[in-house]
Amino acid sequence: MTKIDPNAPIGVFDSGVGGLTVAREIMRNLPMEKIIYFGDTARVPYGSKSRDTVIRYSRQIVRFLREQQVKAIVVACNTASALALSTLEKESDIPIIGVVKPGARVAIETTKKKRVGVIATEATINSHLYRELIRQMDPEITVVGRPCPLFVPLVEEGWLHDSVTETVARRYLKDLQDQDIDTLILGCTHYPLLRSLIGEIMGERVTLVNPAYETSLALKRLLEAGGMMNPGTARSEFPYRFFVSDAAEKFKHFANSILPFDVNMTEQINIEEY
Amino acid sequence: MTKIDPNAPIGVFDSGVGGLTVAREIMRNLPMEKIIYFGDTARVPYGSKSRDTVIRYSRQIVRFLREQQVKAIVVACNTASALALSTLEKESDIPIIGVVKPGARVAIETTKKKRVGVIATEATINSHLYRELIRQMDPEITVVGRPCPLFVPLVEEGWLHDSVTETVARRYLKDLQDQDIDTLILGCTHYPLLRSLIGEIMGERVTLVNPAYETSLALKRLLEAGGMMNPGTARSEFPYRFFVSDAAEKFKHFANSILPFDVNMTEQINIEEY
Repeated sequence: MTKIDPNAPIGVFDSGVGGLTVAREIMRNLPMEKIIYFGDTARVPYGSKSRDTVIRYSRQIVRFLREQQVKAIVVACNTASALALSTLEKESDIPIIGVVKPGARVAIETTKKKRVGVIATEATINSHLYRELIRQMDPEITVVGRPCPLFVPLVEEGWLHDSVTETVARRYLKDLQDQDIDTLILGCTHYPLLRSLIGEIMGERVTLVNPAYETSLALKRLLEAGGMMNPGTARSEFPYRFFVSDAAEKFKHFANSILPFDVNMTEQINIEEY
Repeated sequence: MTKIDPNAPIGVFDSGVGGLTVAREIMRNLPMEKIIYFGDTARVPYGSKSRDTVIRYSRQIVRFLREQQVKAIVVACNTASALALSTLEKESDIPIIGVVKPGARVAIETTKKKRVGVIATEATINSHLYRELIRQMDPEITVVGRPCPLFVPLVEEGWLHDSVTETVARRYLKDLQDQDIDTLILGCTHYPLLRSLIGEIMGERVTLVNPAYETSLALKRLLEAGGMMNPGTARSEFPYRFFVSDAAEKFKHFANSILPFDVNMTEQINIEEY
């Protein structure tokens, strides 16, 4: 590991806007930290793409964030965490964490019946990483996965409280309702935006796990252990910067609905050059 | 223009699989022509992305197809036709055509009431290219556009004959039903797969226009005029090759449902290197 400057920012990336739900938790739980966020809006979504492609894209983003002198990287995308994190970790000289392991850990602590459901993109479900990590930590737990490919487009269409979204959700979640689970991981950063609907369908005996919050705590532990927490003395400017790979209007609109402040400036870069 | 070999293949590209509906029409109407198809499955969809990004992606694909020695290029993607074709045309030394102009031409010939609807991706609708082209040819025609962002994910989910898709379609098409149109352009290559549903909702007094067929005829006229038709004498091998930028399984599945033969082999390339 290289010598790390505690004043350096945290790099957070996602295939698009969804990772802002993770960035928001980091802002809340680590208010002294600067953040450089990158959303790969030119190549979104990742959830229907292959492992090789997601690894290639993630590597380019890590190279970009390293150029921004970040001290640690949070892969705030479930698909990239599931498909690329193990590769990125091996190649990185700074700490890098994803959202899958923190999500798996909370699910283990939550389930009493030892029956956990996961909803996520096709790529995340097909990677079986949530299942593997959970069963490594507790082999007695049964994990049931269900891809929900239309949830992201429905959220992006803005149909959050809508009869169509409800019908789709009831259809996707039907199998899981018969599985006697007591814990359900929202394994895609867009899904917390459908939290109330999913909660209503699954019923109050099923606890919904949002990996974003736990990821911010994992990051905090990591920074503390490494003596890398920002002392917060040198803050003279707005601590958050937002980069995208495609035009920023839609990103701003979505960001402003998720974050507790308005994002007025985003910077566009050509990620393919990294 | 460079000297063109009539035996050379036609290049056809799309953001993903949808352009195969155009390739299919070319196969039917120009059976002697070889085709090199490229689907940008690693960066699909284009319909929610900006003009600059779609131009950059399209340029890379044109460079790839040029390297394959194609004699002409068909932009079989409405979004790329709407956002990038005018730029690509200026830069190209071989003929290059899109799907928007052929689609606009049929709509003009079809409408009696001089009221035409267009459904397409957000990017295509926001480009206003269908409207511009139609009104250039006949300024008396009124053109009403409606983006239908969920149609592509619904088709890719395979929900072609489905109550959810019907509800979404009824909602999207409601405005158009009140507009007294007699012609509706299916301005995205995925939409012909929802043809029967859209036809049912719009009623029999509205004629649906699929630019794919007309595009194949426009290509035929172009080849004839330039003396570029393949004489069909030198065909010793399977005349179609399929390239993708991301893993091919899903592509093959979709291709086999659209084309009159099974696609057994696809070749994957890294399009970002072009």
